[in-house]
Amino acid sequence: MIVKGKHYKTVWLEGTTVYIINQPLLPHKFEIMECPDHQRTARAISNMVIRGAGAIGSAAGYGLAQAVLEAPENDFDAYIETAFANIKNTRPTAQNLFYSIERVYRKVKEAADPQQARIAAVKEAEAIALEDINACKRIGEIGAELIRDDAKILTHCNAGWLAFTDWGTALSPIYVAKRANKKLFVWVDETRPRFQGARLTAWELKEEGVPFAVIADNAAGFYMQRGEVDMVIVGSDRIAKNGDVANKIGTYEKAVMARENNIPFYVAAPTATIDWHCGHGDDIPIEERSQDEVTSITGRDEVNSLHSVTIIPEGAIARNPAFDVTPAKYITGIITERGIVKPQELEKLKTYAEV
Amino acid sequence: MIVKGKHYKTVWLEGTTVYIINQPLLPHKFEIMECPDHQRTARAISNMVIRGAGAIGSAAGYGLAQAVLEAPENDFDAYIETAFANIKNTRPTAQNLFYSIERVYRKVKEAADPQQARIAAVKEAEAIALEDINACKRIGEIGAELIRDDAKILTHCNAGWLAFTDWGTALSPIYVAKRANKKLFVWVDETRPRFQGARLTAWELKEEGVPFAVIADNAAGFYMQRGEVDMVIVGSDRIAKNGDVANKIGTYEKAVMARENNIPFYVAAPTATIDWHCGHGDDIPIEERSQDEVTSITGRDEVNSLHSVTIIPEGAIARNPAFDVTPAKYITGIITERGIVKPQELEKLKTYAEV
Repeated sequence: MIVKGKHYKTVWLEGTTVYIINQPLLPHKFEIMECPDHQRTARAISNMVIRGAGAIGSAAGYGLAQAVLEAPENDFDAYIETAFANIKNTRPTAQNLFYSIERVYRKVKEAADPQQARIAAVKEAEAIALEDINACKRIGEIGAELIRDDAKILTHCNAGWLAFTDWGTALSPIYVAKRANKKLFVWVDETRPRFQGARLTAWELKEEGVPFAVIADNAAGFYMQRGEVDMVIVGSDRIAKNGDVANKIGTYEKAVMARENNIPFYVAAPTATIDWHCGHGDDIPIEERSQDEVTSITGRDEVNSLHSVTIIPEGAIARNPAFDVTPAKYITGIITERGIVKPQELEKLKTYAEV
Repeated sequence: MIVKGKHYKTVWLEGTTVYIINQPLLPHKFEIMECPDHQRTARAISNMVIRGAGAIGSAAGYGLAQAVLEAPENDFDAYIETAFANIKNTRPTAQNLFYSIERVYRKVKEAADPQQARIAAVKEAEAIALEDINACKRIGEIGAELIRDDAKILTHCNAGWLAFTDWGTALSPIYVAKRANKKLFVWVDETRPRFQGARLTAWELKEEGVPFAVIADNAAGFYMQRGEVDMVIVGSDRIAKNGDVANKIGTYEKAVMARENNIPFYVAAPTATIDWHCGHGDDIPIEERSQDEVTSITGRDEVNSLHSVTIIPEGAIARNPAFDVTPAKYITGIITERGIVKPQELEKLKTYAEV
């Protein structure tokens, strides 16, 4: 998408170097991190310089392709095995990460010689990134049809292009509608505790020229009650077979508030997010993260340098569940690259391979 | 209530000096501000060194009593008139403030001479503070009966003793139950944007030894869904005749989430909070405050000094409604010093004088 008037992806490969938008610095500084070798790319994933399902997938694929390019011919296979293990261990639960490196790895194994392997690895990594971009763009095109002119849309967290290779999921329909010259306004839940809305979604929308306002998560219901929200679109981390949706903490509250106020509530996600082995939302494990994310806040001071401050009394305890599960009954529709379905009708999206 | 083992009120008069707990420094520093004259007391109210309906009322009453003590006999009436106007202008919409200074002023006018006026003014200011304390304490006694042993209670914002002269409203039943040796746990909504929960409620509970955890406002629904919240108690800024309740932004969301999860939702407030002239929640004006409260956060750094940091992109816009209205249908009961009523039955609380 557009940053300072120029098109960027969250991650890309040029020659043997991987380039990554340094997300922890956003929105305060826009910096591209150069990762000249696969070790540096792996570290960027584990340090969360890049985060988000699709973005991690692409970065991991490029990382393994880098390793294939680097591997000395006299130690070719062993070097790649080590790199594979290294990249695999960067994030414990990132489904897309495993998926990507396994795809690249398979192509390498199938290649006749190192030269063929190098070509195949880069090609497969590029294919993975492109598939992610295309799925997100398709979600945008399909979802944009739901957005009427002059719509006010509420979103929670960041399911924008920064979380994918480009376009994003929840924000993709907004970008497509904007480029089709629809008039739009976005309410951005700041999304405590990590402020992905206030930091990342606000930054994306600003760069793309979409009008928006950041609000405290507490104010979402207020604007719904006043008739100032026409629809809600959020992303998802995992979707169970019965249509229950795991997403950033607070999503469940927004879904209930939307239903209470007769506002359509959509989830936008590639079909890869559906876990066909998970029958019910209750089976999705909810990660509880460090209380520091609640108690301590990082931002820029008056001279634009980054600082952390603590808000709660010394010795006080905070709890920090990172996700929640929104039961299917609160969800109007799930927007995927294969079409929009009711959460109760997810099975319709299954392809032959997934049955 | 108890601070570092000693009993404090939020504001009190000793000789001709008013003492006020400096609330903007909490929870980082506990400091008592000395106001040696009524001008300094007025400034403490306008600067929000003291905030909260009952606390402002007491401070204003003491401030005018101070002015009466200071007034030179050769300019007695004019001095008091000026002080009255000065204190009245400190906060635009604080109902308790006007109520208090008018009560003290009336006593001064009725007095036979300056000496009688001085005695009457101090006596009336003390009476106002004591009435506030007694109403809050009674709310605590009445509300505590709703709290079963081992209860997990969620609260939003700070309707604790810091917002009144002592005891508070939403937290008063918790303090009474605690002192009756009931086992308790409190979920403290951090209460964005101003963090009154994370800062003030957490501090109060910690000093009183009540077990609690601070959570992002987004996590309240999550814990309700899991069955880990037995009841919700909040305060109120204004209650309409039909039982609609204005309170800190986010209260409406918590009330809807509570009903959705079959959890009783109580509002605790003195009957003075009921606006018999306001028929419906829609008639309550909602203050929109500066966007800086959303975009900029103050806390302590690693060397314990206070700093502000900004979280959103430069030039981004935030909206900041300070209150919302919870329709009566979501409220299980309103706990007042005259008993607990359903919001639809508020009229039962009316005394002869209010009819």
